[in-house]
Amino acid sequence: MPEYLAIRGGGSILETIRNPELSAEITLQPVRRYGVDAAILFSDIVVPTDAIGFGIDVVPGTGPVVEHPFREASDLDRVRPLEPDVDTDYVLATVRLLVQELTVPLIGFAGAPFTIASYLIEGRPSRDHARTKALMLEQPGLWHDLMERLADIAIVSLRSQVLAGASAIQLFDSWAGALRPVDYREFVAPHSKRVLEEVADLGVPTAHFGVGTGELLDQMAAVGADVVGVDWRVPINEARRRLGPGVAVQGNLDPAVCLANWDVVADQVRQVLDSAGGLPGHIFNLGHGVLPETDPTILERVVELVHTEGRAG
Amino acid sequence: MPEYLAIRGGGSILETIRNPELSAEITLQPVRRYGVDAAILFSDIVVPTDAIGFGIDVVPGTGPVVEHPFREASDLDRVRPLEPDVDTDYVLATVRLLVQELTVPLIGFAGAPFTIASYLIEGRPSRDHARTKALMLEQPGLWHDLMERLADIAIVSLRSQVLAGASAIQLFDSWAGALRPVDYREFVAPHSKRVLEEVADLGVPTAHFGVGTGELLDQMAAVGADVVGVDWRVPINEARRRLGPGVAVQGNLDPAVCLANWDVVADQVRQVLDSAGGLPGHIFNLGHGVLPETDPTILERVVELVHTEGRAG
Repeated sequence: MPEYLAIRGGGSILETIRNPELSAEITLQPVRRYGVDAAILFSDIVVPTDAIGFGIDVVPGTGPVVEHPFREASDLDRVRPLEPDVDTDYVLATVRLLVQELTVPLIGFAGAPFTIASYLIEGRPSRDHARTKALMLEQPGLWHDLMERLADIAIVSLRSQVLAGASAIQLFDSWAGALRPVDYREFVAPHSKRVLEEVADLGVPTAHFGVGTGELLDQMAAVGADVVGVDWRVPINEARRRLGPGVAVQGNLDPAVCLANWDVVADQVRQVLDSAGGLPGHIFNLGHGVLPETDPTILERVVELVHTEGRAG
Repeated sequence: MPEYLAIRGGGSILETIRNPELSAEITLQPVRRYGVDAAILFSDIVVPTDAIGFGIDVVPGTGPVVEHPFREASDLDRVRPLEPDVDTDYVLATVRLLVQELTVPLIGFAGAPFTIASYLIEGRPSRDHARTKALMLEQPGLWHDLMERLADIAIVSLRSQVLAGASAIQLFDSWAGALRPVDYREFVAPHSKRVLEEVADLGVPTAHFGVGTGELLDQMAAVGADVVGVDWRVPINEARRRLGPGVAVQGNLDPAVCLANWDVVADQVRQVLDSAGGLPGHIFNLGHGVLPETDPTILERVVELVHTEGRAG
């Protein structure tokens, strides 16, 4: 969005996140422009690990880059507990500003332990996650120690956002789809499950999302979020079958399709709604993040169409 | 492999492929070192489209880069038919050299129309394939015209490799897993099917492979190859269930795992063999390409272990 580029400028993303007024304004921009049904806090999943001093920068066009990646047991000391009131007070200030302004729910979020571990270990976004998988399989004790600390950080961060006023939370496990189902079961699911269990008493809705997780949906249902997000590779009706009863599904318009003309986008939006069949328990969303080159007016029309036809369905 | 780096030097990959003596030697290197059961021709899936003058370079560390990407109907003229005896005579010379030398089968290959189309349209490797999807959905007529031409090129290229002596062929549709199953059905499967149909009379075994194709395996079985390759996300036994009877399965050790220590790798090799259950119709392979930083001695031990335990299984 042009208004986002205007306010963000060219500086560090993490620097912008440390500014509550700016971050609140950026959070409000898509709500104003698109009229979406919820606001997602402007922040980044690596904020808490950066805030405890692990040393991360979010490089525009690249993603999180870690100066000294996690390599061995001695690095565990660098993953100390998060103290949100001190370490990420600016995030909580942003949340408090927003809940005064917003008329729709505010969704807070955290990175799931696996995806954060991948960034810490690889040192940058990775296609293959080879170092992460090697550490996980070679040193399972160290792996679980790291995952426990990252789960603790996610728990404390999510709790602090809810206590500051967020009314729903999302756990992003963006890269979990790179794993074999058996490895997800042993090395990842228990930690994500604990994160969700330890925020359950707050009574806010929880969502859980990753890309390419078609083979993991049954396990993600068992991890325990109220809502599981799926990408466009699995139709909504098939995702429901894999998730089983009692779990809502979120998705799944392909963000790449939003670069096509409106007739194509409208057709694909209707296909998502058709696959959901007008049944309750579907939250319309993209199947992954918005691509930077997307025309904002296309997204305006997507929201309008979903509000018209989705609610009629 | 150090012997590969020594012989390849730092020059252009396509330049090396144009040298039959060098390409034959590079093809032989893994056969000598690893004692694998088949040789895969050293070449690249973009060789034919470069050879007809589309203008592609394979940049080390990046992949295929196209100077003037495919944008509109007038670009169709740039995708002229392949004349293998003229355009890719060096590939056929390499095949002829190899069949004199080899004591194991030589596998030739081609890029499937979708994956080649993605390179031509995006102009470089893409995570989201957004331009490709836009062209496919906005201009289905132009899309099918392009895919027909690319299918023709694949057919002619594969036929020429077999007539020169290759004893099996593989169709690589590396990026097909980025598609929704309904789009694969309408825009991709018919063209890949035609490629395989039009080489069937040659009577050589055919294989078909893509990454992240778990949701497409039933359709890939119907496309008609004798063997379908799967990555590590779907266990061999589950892949068999989705493929149905009459199709062999190839895979699926995660190449990222080959960067771990030998105990871990051996354990994962055994898990692949266990999942195949000692039943016929399984070709052990990696679930995607070897990562450049892989220690060749690990791969030597993988081959040895598969030969010992796989044949006993």
